[in-house]
Amino acid sequence: MHVAIPLYPRFTALDVAGPYTVLSMVPGCTVTLVAADRGPVADDFGTFLLAATASYEEVPAPDVIMVPGGTGTLDVLSDEALVNWIRQAHEHTRWTTSVCTGSLLLGAAGLLEGLPATSHWALLDLLKQYGAEPVSTRVVHTGKIVTAAGVSAGIDMALTLVGKAVDEETAQSVQLAIEYDPEPPFTAGSLQTAPEGIPDRALHLLTQTP
Amino acid sequence: MHVAIPLYPRFTALDVAGPYTVLSMVPGCTVTLVAADRGPVADDFGTFLLAATASYEEVPAPDVIMVPGGTGTLDVLSDEALVNWIRQAHEHTRWTTSVCTGSLLLGAAGLLEGLPATSHWALLDLLKQYGAEPVSTRVVHTGKIVTAAGVSAGIDMALTLVGKAVDEETAQSVQLAIEYDPEPPFTAGSLQTAPEGIPDRALHLLTQTP
Repeated sequence: MHVAIPLYPRFTALDVAGPYTVLSMVPGCTVTLVAADRGPVADDFGTFLLAATASYEEVPAPDVIMVPGGTGTLDVLSDEALVNWIRQAHEHTRWTTSVCTGSLLLGAAGLLEGLPATSHWALLDLLKQYGAEPVSTRVVHTGKIVTAAGVSAGIDMALTLVGKAVDEETAQSVQLAIEYDPEPPFTAGSLQTAPEGIPDRALHLLTQTP
Repeated sequence: MHVAIPLYPRFTALDVAGPYTVLSMVPGCTVTLVAADRGPVADDFGTFLLAATASYEEVPAPDVIMVPGGTGTLDVLSDEALVNWIRQAHEHTRWTTSVCTGSLLLGAAGLLEGLPATSHWALLDLLKQYGAEPVSTRVVHTGKIVTAAGVSAGIDMALTLVGKAVDEETAQSVQLAIEYDPEPPFTAGSLQTAPEGIPDRALHLLTQTP
């Protein structure tokens, strides 16, 4: 199984590294970080320089694509090279997936028309502009499209995919390998659980420029 | 607050990106990826090439160090440049921290003598060779040393640190910003919860060479 993750300026590091680490552990699975050109791409803080090791042209038909989110997503919705690669790769994929605001790029590629999908809570409603039905669910499966909620949801999505692509025992083994037995020290990870005032503060953090 | 994360060959991507993303969101906090020399360092699958943007010499006294784990940890326990940097940086830190097998590097630097500490479950007992007391707890605080369990535990540790370094509201805001409301699709993330046979399979995944 060949998974391709496109990088673009101001992606979020955890959006990429969560699914990357989970999927790379699966025997026979290779993950390739791609971009318009090979070379380092900077994350949304400018301090995480991660290399694309292949260009879009070099990876035209991966089995899975996983589009990450980031504060740079809105700026690349009109990036034809990226959006065309997503659209064309999708024709051949077993799964077309996204984490966080990456779903907006699936929308820009015309893949979400009439479908339920999720995204980061802060930009969830923007999915409507692509004809999608925004859903506040951590991982949304619809046909071969799988979208995950914000940032850390990519870990849950990737484990789900491993269960479907291989088997439940392999997914459980990966879960144990990454010791994914979460113990968040606070209960503020969703709009439903966050104390009053925290959503506004979180929005402020998300819109700060480095 | 200045956080330094050392990279070494065959680090685990999620060990780095979890705490990196959490800590980078904190206003006034800067995270720098360091190594013996500036430039890309490959993770344990050889496909995640992340750049160190500063050398050890350039970051001698960060406020926090966060040492990641990886399948390469055992090979760098005798890397004097890395171990000496950890030992010397520790003299100035507010917190000296690790994720996963990164705690073995704190041990190699002589920082865990007589102290409780944790690590990835698969190598937890190796902490004894450094005089530490292995503890199966997700995050272990002892003085200014904080160790986290395997891979994904770094997210929990980093949120805990934000709560202590700034305040609980900021940590909650970061938690919501990364939508950290985990929903693992399986219940196999710890030795206590993993079904029979899964620990052996997880060990096999961890010891496969890419």
